[in-house]
Amino acid sequence: MVDVCYLVPGVGLPSEERERRERVSNELTPDHVDVSVLEAEGPGPTSIESAVEELWCTVGSMQTAHRVEDEFDALVIGCFGDPGIRGLRELLDIPVVGPAETTIHTAAMIADRFTWLTILDETIPMSHEQAHEHHLSDRCVSVRSVDAPVESIDHGDDDLVERMVREGNAAIEEDGAEALFPGCMSLSFAQRHDEIEERVGVPFLDPASLALETAATWARHGVAQSAATYPEPKFEKLGDLLGEPAAASDD
Amino acid sequence: MVDVCYLVPGVGLPSEERERRERVSNELTPDHVDVSVLEAEGPGPTSIESAVEELWCTVGSMQTAHRVEDEFDALVIGCFGDPGIRGLRELLDIPVVGPAETTIHTAAMIADRFTWLTILDETIPMSHEQAHEHHLSDRCVSVRSVDAPVESIDHGDDDLVERMVREGNAAIEEDGAEALFPGCMSLSFAQRHDEIEERVGVPFLDPASLALETAATWARHGVAQSAATYPEPKFEKLGDLLGEPAAASDD
Amino acid sequence: MVDVCYLVPGVGLPSEERERRERVSNELTPDHVDVSVLEAEGPGPTSIESAVEELWCTVGSMQTAHRVEDEFDALVIGCFGDPGIRGLRELLDIPVVGPAETTIHTAAMIADRFTWLTILDETIPMSHEQAHEHHLSDRCVSVRSVDAPVESIDHGDDDLVERMVREGNAAIEEDGAEALFPGCMSLSFAQRHDEIEERVGVPFLDPASLALETAATWARHGVAQSAATYPEPKFEKLGDLLGEPAAASDD
Amino acid sequence: MVDVCYLVPGVGLPSEERERRERVSNELTPDHVDVSVLEAEGPGPTSIESAVEELWCTVGSMQTAHRVEDEFDALVIGCFGDPGIRGLRELLDIPVVGPAETTIHTAAMIADRFTWLTILDETIPMSHEQAHEHHLSDRCVSVRSVDAPVESIDHGDDDLVERMVREGNAAIEEDGAEALFPGCMSLSFAQRHDEIEERVGVPFLDPASLALETAATWARHGVAQSAATYPEPKFEKLGDLLGEPAAASDD
Amino acid sequence: MVDVCYLVPGVGLPSEERERRERVSNELTPDHVDVSVLEAEGPGPTSIESAVEELWCTVGSMQTAHRVEDEFDALVIGCFGDPGIRGLRELLDIPVVGPAETTIHTAAMIADRFTWLTILDETIPMSHEQAHEHHLSDRCVSVRSVDAPVESIDHGDDDLVERMVREGNAAIEEDGAEALFPGCMSLSFAQRHDEIEERVGVPFLDPASLALETAATWARHGVAQSAATYPEPKFEKLGDLLGEPAAASDD
Amino acid sequence: MVDVCYLVPGVGLPSEERERRERVSNELTPDHVDVSVLEAEGPGPTSIESAVEELWCTVGSMQTAHRVEDEFDALVIGCFGDPGIRGLRELLDIPVVGPAETTIHTAAMIADRFTWLTILDETIPMSHEQAHEHHLSDRCVSVRSVDAPVESIDHGDDDLVERMVREGNAAIEEDGAEALFPGCMSLSFAQRHDEIEERVGVPFLDPASLALETAATWARHGVAQSAATYPEPKFEKLGDLLGEPAAASDD
Repeated sequence: MVDVCYLVPGVGLPSEERERRERVSNELTPDHVDVSVLEAEGPGPTSIESAVEELWCTVGSMQTAHRVEDEFDALVIGCFGDPGIRGLRELLDIPVVGPAETTIHTAAMIADRFTWLTILDETIPMSHEQAHEHHLSDRCVSVRSVDAPVESIDHGDDDLVERMVREGNAAIEEDGAEALFPGCMSLSFAQRHDEIEERVGVPFLDPASLALETAATWARHGVAQSAATYPEPKFEKLGDLLGEPAAASDD
Repeated sequence: MVDVCYLVPGVGLPSEERERRERVSNELTPDHVDVSVLEAEGPGPTSIESAVEELWCTVGSMQTAHRVEDEFDALVIGCFGDPGIRGLRELLDIPVVGPAETTIHTAAMIADRFTWLTILDETIPMSHEQAHEHHLSDRCVSVRSVDAPVESIDHGDDDLVERMVREGNAAIEEDGAEALFPGCMSLSFAQRHDEIEERVGVPFLDPASLALETAATWARHGVAQSAATYPEPKFEKLGDLLGEPAAASDD
Repeated sequence: MVDVCYLVPGVGLPSEERERRERVSNELTPDHVDVSVLEAEGPGPTSIESAVEELWCTVGSMQTAHRVEDEFDALVIGCFGDPGIRGLRELLDIPVVGPAETTIHTAAMIADRFTWLTILDETIPMSHEQAHEHHLSDRCVSVRSVDAPVESIDHGDDDLVERMVREGNAAIEEDGAEALFPGCMSLSFAQRHDEIEERVGVPFLDPASLALETAATWARHGVAQSAATYPEPKFEKLGDLLGEPAAASDD
Repeated sequence: MVDVCYLVPGVGLPSEERERRERVSNELTPDHVDVSVLEAEGPGPTSIESAVEELWCTVGSMQTAHRVEDEFDALVIGCFGDPGIRGLRELLDIPVVGPAETTIHTAAMIADRFTWLTILDETIPMSHEQAHEHHLSDRCVSVRSVDAPVESIDHGDDDLVERMVREGNAAIEEDGAEALFPGCMSLSFAQRHDEIEERVGVPFLDPASLALETAATWARHGVAQSAATYPEPKFEKLGDLLGEPAAASDD
Repeated sequence: MVDVCYLVPGVGLPSEERERRERVSNELTPDHVDVSVLEAEGPGPTSIESAVEELWCTVGSMQTAHRVEDEFDALVIGCFGDPGIRGLRELLDIPVVGPAETTIHTAAMIADRFTWLTILDETIPMSHEQAHEHHLSDRCVSVRSVDAPVESIDHGDDDLVERMVREGNAAIEEDGAEALFPGCMSLSFAQRHDEIEERVGVPFLDPASLALETAATWARHGVAQSAATYPEPKFEKLGDLLGEPAAASDD
Repeated sequence: MVDVCYLVPGVGLPSEERERRERVSNELTPDHVDVSVLEAEGPGPTSIESAVEELWCTVGSMQTAHRVEDEFDALVIGCFGDPGIRGLRELLDIPVVGPAETTIHTAAMIADRFTWLTILDETIPMSHEQAHEHHLSDRCVSVRSVDAPVESIDHGDDDLVERMVREGNAAIEEDGAEALFPGCMSLSFAQRHDEIEERVGVPFLDPASLALETAATWARHGVAQSAATYPEPKFEKLGDLLGEPAAASDD
């Protein structure tokens, strides 16, 4: 059995949604994989739509990830910004998987050129830079917004599906996109990718599936981030960060 | 059950080695995955160490892949040069996975900078261009030869392991490599990566595991090459290629 | 006298068209150059519009090129995809010239930014990757299709000329193209480039002229592909490929 | 008068060192510039030598920066990692200057190729990626460590100066460096750059001077980060972060 | 006091305009900076709108710069093409600042992606190559012309301001620009940037301010071009260039 | 007959050396090509080994090229720095060929990676930037100096040949070079490339042959620089430059 922690940064995810994502995650992965969806310790943002929120959430993520590491074989960062990925990789010995990293590389494997559907006009610049961070920006022909603040995203929102289809088709026609993916885990967990893919006619990747499977595969094969790239921090300096779950008194 | 075809291009793989690789492949993958190791139809090269041989082998690969496609859910090209990958992706509807593509992208995810250990001095230039083909050449800090003609590679060859350790350490010390991988499936199926990784101290990836797992994952989730990038060829023009296994009379 | 082989990959070029191209080629080159237009041995595709066909045709190209090498001072690959160029360069001592390679580099010398007019929507992705293969994709501002299946291309087709002018003008206006070229040797041998150039107002290169002249120049000056980049293959392993013209019994 | 805040992320800077840096900063800048050196609110790391510490320190930086913004015309991040720069730029209206960003761009202006002298072997990979983040990695010919844990750095440490001279000379001889800079503000505030520059014979930049002057210049001319790149966050979502200095009760 | 020479290449700048620019320059810079606006020796072009004129003007620039070097602490090239920057940097010991170089780097610091507003359709290609020359072309999402021949540019020309606003808005909407700047010092000295910035809503940089401040800062801190990048020329070979102001007899 | 002007920028080429280069040029090119070696009008540098000299020489080059344009079908710039190439291309309708541009592109065609042998340590940085200017710097694995001031270069200098062989071999062994070329026309006209190539074992290109042949080919086929990239300057503004050969009174 491979135990994967899907760690949601930030706070305030309703417990029924946490449970739904855990159920979906276990349906997406093979029987030998057990996914637990955890929420990070607070304080933290209620959704992550800016660099401020990305930075803010990482403290809680690091605290929770450090505390639960022994219970898991791999960790998936539960936000498409992959917030704190370098820090988490330094901190943990188990493999740390970022959904954006996995999805961008998968898109680059199945297509020459892809478009990233992000949630807001405001997140277009950071999405471009995130593609650049993975050295694959020349494969990202465009980033387009589907105008979907995270907290508004609902699995049953057909309007949102229409906007993803419309922007996806525009990306194909105008930008030359040959594959698409949504730049948000709430969009991913809406699990509408199959119907969108059918309507746009090019692959529409599901970040949740890809990240969870990658985590399980890496864990099974002993693949993990290089300690040369992500050296272990000096834990004796991190007492105030990791010593006691700071969240306990902050909530 | 997910059925994966691991298709060895070229001819002359001894049947016991074919069987060994099939056994290893099924050990590497989870229970729900069934891997068949097939040899491509001839004529073709007895090993692939040059561009001539890469091109030559693709005709047989395409013929065999087309003939057996209905029996499988995914296909892995059984050579690290990923020979014929664009053609195979056009030809097949099932996902086609190249070990080099998968390994290069995985290396780029677990480390910032990696070194490719290739078999011969003569294959250094093509390895560099292969990294460039995947738009990740700026992450490939060096390509080094371990001086191992394919047909000389043996699972029990401790000298070869020493050369991989020696070149790997040199890559780390002199070139700044933070991860390593062998650029040859025979090196991969030697399955000595764990001991090498332990000795060099940075991740030493196993292309076979990564490619087989990726194939199974893509198949389970309906992920495949984009038809926009790899359009279906006009089959009516391919009769002489695909009509009858050309190899039958050529051998 | 410099003898240049213009080798047409694939099969089925009508003999009158072969003769016309040979006549045109000799008109395009100076008196001291003698061009022979040869068709590669079969089997092979009747036209090359996909990666499958590019790969398929290379076996016959390598066989024919190897057989006739002694009769020539240089070889031009008679297809804009430059199919098999790395293999042919390994196989031959005489210089091997690819029309795409020559044309892309020439376009990059006479202009900062160029557009590639390809035959089909389906060949747009491979054209982009071909520009990338030559490390000049950032000079290629667009690839546009003129909707011209190879077998439909006719020297006297004024409609096709109109489409090239229209797409060329759109490339200039919308994409910032400062030079153009057609991505197909049938388009090149239509020899309508002068009138198109006059109508669009920017250079419209002729791949046939450029490739043939480059071949003759390299031959005269002893310039050829580097054996460090394209090492000589082990000929003893290539008996089944080169021993007897495989096409003889296959046709 | 232009008021510049030099904000030191993390905690534990001795007050005499804070005062020394403030005095040095005011000596480095023209009379019309007034620099205040502030320490960020805790909790936070005592020095920043890893991605974990970079992320950890940003919460306090954002809190302090937000609280004091009205008192200043510009803010300089007091750490060469530019930790939290995207978040701080979203959060503040006044210009936010990162010493690394300023120094890398200045090095690229005064020389074609430069070397970055970082504090530790462990920070080499992040330095490379930081250069990449600014799209100038092809100008950074090497990153070399001077083996100087932050807390060990002392203005009077002649051994450290020797190591900087030695690595600098090696960078010039072996890597082709034409300019150098230290990748740490403690190295910068050691203010030994003039003597090092004289001994190595190429420019040895001082990040503190450059960042402070840039901040003052931008403030005087109304230059600041683009709100299109760094959109203002939704402040109503940031109450728990910014409402009350969280550090008060955490210390 | 820091003495900065703003050297206008070419000839024919009306003396009242020279005086206006000197007055503006001194208003833009702090009190401790004294800017002198000098015109280069002739012969030379009356405005610089082509590569021919860029090259032609550099002889006079080098002659004047060499002659007056001792009177100044830094030199700014008074043309956005930065004509002759490599030569001037070799020739002088004092720092040489190019407005384009400074502005491009500043734009890359305050925004991820910017647009360059150039004077003419004809100068679009050279502007693109100038961004490439600074290795920042992937941050320059477009170059757009405001149709303003240099000699037509007037501080009070509201039509020109309208065209800059219109093209700026188009760059933001269509090209994704997050910052803008004018590619001409006459446009800069029109000093209309504040009102344009206010109307377009993203930073609109002023090359004159940035270049003058950079020059003063570099001079104050002993920062200058690297002699490893810009080696001192052999002055004994430059007698005919520098010996006597060649312009004297040429006019 | 195709008439090619090989225009030597700068002054002071001994007439016997001019005649020797003209004789060699005509031996290198086919019978239908007639090459005239012309010296540019003065004043100008006696050799070109710095950016100052590159800029200085272009005025005379432009004057002479403009005056003699009607007599020729193509022009080759007689210096490996391609000084003034953008200006000359604007100024002339006939094709303008730069030896560096031609040689760099040819090297990129015959090999994946090449080394540039430049004359002096001082010209290494400009050589790197010149490769970058042609967007092919990632193919240039190194620039190495052969320590040969232009005026010292002599056809019969065996020591210089030894240095080129030694640096060439070092480039192959240490830098991975697969082709070489000398970055100076005096080195090229020494015409020792054949013996060097034989000794180093990889192609050693001859810039003179390549540039002259390219010029003749382009002229014969009506290929020339794009007027969209190199727009015609406003000749009415260039009277002082082109009106009367300024050199007449200066010499």
